[in-house]
Amino acid sequence: MTATLDATFAALADPTRRAILARLAKGEAGVMELAEPFAMSQPAISKHLKVLERAGLIARGRDAQRRPCKLVAAPLKDVDLWLARYREMWEERLELLDGVLDDLKRDEARSKRKRK
Amino acid sequence: MTATLDATFAALADPTRRAILARLAKGEAGVMELAEPFAMSQPAISKHLKVLERAGLIARGRDAQRRPCKLVAAPLKDVDLWLARYREMWEERLELLDGVLDDLKRDEARSKRKRK
Repeated sequence: MTATLDATFAALADPTRRAILARLAKGEAGVMELAEPFAMSQPAISKHLKVLERAGLIARGRDAQRRPCKLVAAPLKDVDLWLARYREMWEERLELLDGVLDDLKRDEARSKRKRK
Repeated sequence: MTATLDATFAALADPTRRAILARLAKGEAGVMELAEPFAMSQPAISKHLKVLERAGLIARGRDAQRRPCKLVAAPLKDVDLWLARYREMWEERLELLDGVLDDLKRDEARSKRKRK
């Protein structure tokens, strides 16, 4: 699990690889299709695909000609589980901020009433 | 935002750095305290702290002697936002799996009734 998270996070630390995943979230695609939106050679895209495949984030079809890629969501679910323990930290902070904003609004309403 | 996600994911791709964040989730700590549970020199830990600080995942106090570190959750929230679009993919898959399990259970119950 630790090794998997290492590979997952490392694979996600590149904007091209994240863009490839975003494209695959819409459906399977071959290397040619994936390379198209990027100003990148097919070998460069293939290299990124290898990193994603090693991290288990994509799987490639058996079709020898096209070898279509598809997204595998399981490692992203592991990232989500890892994030869970931190989630309450920013949620708490947002609640604190909400509280401060409510106080400010109440003070403003009060001072408006006084001015009338 | 793209550059920030790059730095965040790269910083998270190391088990020591993730362990440091887990420790800091419990409260501020100095370099000495952070180095203790790891079989690692203080300079090695300091290097990891620099990566985390550059990624905005930790902030360091002004206290010149100790410079206590604290967790900054904002970049993790960005990871959470990035993950959101994929979340429904594994949730859908889990629902599908639940459906398959329900079908299996129903079939088993039916065949048991027949056997009686």
